[in-house]
Amino acid sequence: MKETISLDEIYAPIEEPLLEVPDSILSILSTPNELASEVIRYFFSRQGKYLRPALTFFGAAIENHQSSLQEEKLSRLAAAFEIFHSATLIHDDIIDSAHIRRNIPTINVKWSPQVAVLVGDYLHDKAISAIFECENGRVISLFLRTAGLVCDGEIHELREKNNFNLKEDEYLEIIHKKTASLIACCIESGAILTGLPIEKVEALKRFGRDFGMAFQIVDDCLDFMGEEHEFGKTLGTDAEEGVLTLPLIRLMQVVDEPTKSKVFKIFKRGIAALEDVSDASNKLRTLKELLAEYGALDYAMAKGREFTEKARLELSIFADSPIKRSLNHLLDYVLDRNR
Amino acid sequence: MKETISLDEIYAPIEEPLLEVPDSILSILSTPNELASEVIRYFFSRQGKYLRPALTFFGAAIENHQSSLQEEKLSRLAAAFEIFHSATLIHDDIIDSAHIRRNIPTINVKWSPQVAVLVGDYLHDKAISAIFECENGRVISLFLRTAGLVCDGEIHELREKNNFNLKEDEYLEIIHKKTASLIACCIESGAILTGLPIEKVEALKRFGRDFGMAFQIVDDCLDFMGEEHEFGKTLGTDAEEGVLTLPLIRLMQVVDEPTKSKVFKIFKRGIAALEDVSDASNKLRTLKELLAEYGALDYAMAKGREFTEKARLELSIFADSPIKRSLNHLLDYVLDRNR
Repeated sequence: MKETISLDEIYAPIEEPLLEVPDSILSILSTPNELASEVIRYFFSRQGKYLRPALTFFGAAIENHQSSLQEEKLSRLAAAFEIFHSATLIHDDIIDSAHIRRNIPTINVKWSPQVAVLVGDYLHDKAISAIFECENGRVISLFLRTAGLVCDGEIHELREKNNFNLKEDEYLEIIHKKTASLIACCIESGAILTGLPIEKVEALKRFGRDFGMAFQIVDDCLDFMGEEHEFGKTLGTDAEEGVLTLPLIRLMQVVDEPTKSKVFKIFKRGIAALEDVSDASNKLRTLKELLAEYGALDYAMAKGREFTEKARLELSIFADSPIKRSLNHLLDYVLDRNR
Repeated sequence: MKETISLDEIYAPIEEPLLEVPDSILSILSTPNELASEVIRYFFSRQGKYLRPALTFFGAAIENHQSSLQEEKLSRLAAAFEIFHSATLIHDDIIDSAHIRRNIPTINVKWSPQVAVLVGDYLHDKAISAIFECENGRVISLFLRTAGLVCDGEIHELREKNNFNLKEDEYLEIIHKKTASLIACCIESGAILTGLPIEKVEALKRFGRDFGMAFQIVDDCLDFMGEEHEFGKTLGTDAEEGVLTLPLIRLMQVVDEPTKSKVFKIFKRGIAALEDVSDASNKLRTLKELLAEYGALDYAMAKGREFTEKARLELSIFADSPIKRSLNHLLDYVLDRNR
């Protein structure tokens, strides 16, 4: 069994450019607008995993010298992807009525959904402006296509809320659009910007896509696992909001009718409204127990592993290098992480 | 006194390209996503005034032959500006909790604020993609700067909610950013795209800005005037939401202390919560009467007229033409419109 190493160790080969990302983010987002400025400082005070900037740097560095990473352009592009991703998180938190993100109250809770709508829009605009500044037509049009896809995926997900007949294929299409497409776009953009040949760009794009699929599937599993303070966001949010993810889709496929109606009931009325258990956390526990009992989480995690193994195959085109080793470790990390 | 002519008559010189805008909009926004598609068809079933596409065409046509207007690029650019504007309206309606837009229920009411967040994002992304397709670096970077400004203006407005000390200057800065900048961007972009010399581009930009200022001031007055079904959106929304616009800013400047606390009370608790009048429409009436009594609406309308007269001066650089006459009529129209 492979030993999983930490994200810091995985990021070691791109540590230098990655360290500049927080400053790049704040520089792209600097504004005399006091409210915007306050909200931005608050949101970015808790650093995310920086997966998207990291993948941008990995894509740029896999066959290039460290020096090319120093480029201002690449740094701003990496920061812009993180900003764009943050904009979608801020709007997602409104849509999901989420209360916690990165262990602190969400913007919709600390300020208001109104502030969250506008600050999300602001980040969105600034990200696009910064990506435009990289002056690479291929990257810009790839990004604009991807932004449309992300939004399409989120609307698709919203439409399927409370759809108990949601098929696994449709779920996979949704997460491909809303998550995997942007992750693929990051590593592909890094590769494009440093002039990698097309077959290698395409391989990295597919790597990013499959890694992104696994990442989202695990994320959806984590929504039912572990402790809130560990995961850093509200648990059970998806179910509470009527969003069916892979573990629940699987559960609905395999349970008998009485259990199905039990799940149905939890789902339909919201976890917080279930009658025969005493409080919201008990209700989430009931759901977790069912998922464990019927192996639905194991099934979903196995599906995640299928994607990481597909992603791993894409790396065979590259010679061994610290970056390649990091990308391989990232595939292990995504399955074993707890937040 | 000048005779005001209708918007259709004003638009006559650009009627042909303008007629293509609805199809361009739907073509830019076409998506297999059923929910998005349904919401988009619904929203665009009620045509707005198409001010932004019209100004784009006016800017392009003022010194050019009709033929240049046929260009696909210009048509898509004009449609993109309308789409971008629509995205801001959709998000504004969430922020203002507005119920009616163009005489039909808003998306946040007919579907949900969640759907409105995402469909707004979708329109936003598609507008930017379409503007990018015009392949004119000056237009693209002008637009991206403007998009940032619009959002900045909206956040600024949100921050000043319930600020009874809001100064007229600050109000003017807010409406410059949130409204006038985009209107100026439209006419300037049209002019840039057809290669007008810089001094004429700049004159049109200033025309657009001053016209936009007048337009927003009148819009803010209309929020207290006329009938809802005529105006096509919820009346008194600004006051209800604690947004101070020019009529109220003026009123607060000129009234005595007892009246000030009366207004204060209406404002602070929301129009719908005032105790000594029987229903929301009575409460709005009270506010309207005060605005009339103290000449606050007249003051605001006079300020609007100042801006239209400033805008008119910018046209002196252009030779007489049907387009120039239309732009002059548009300045009269903006003051006399009732929706």
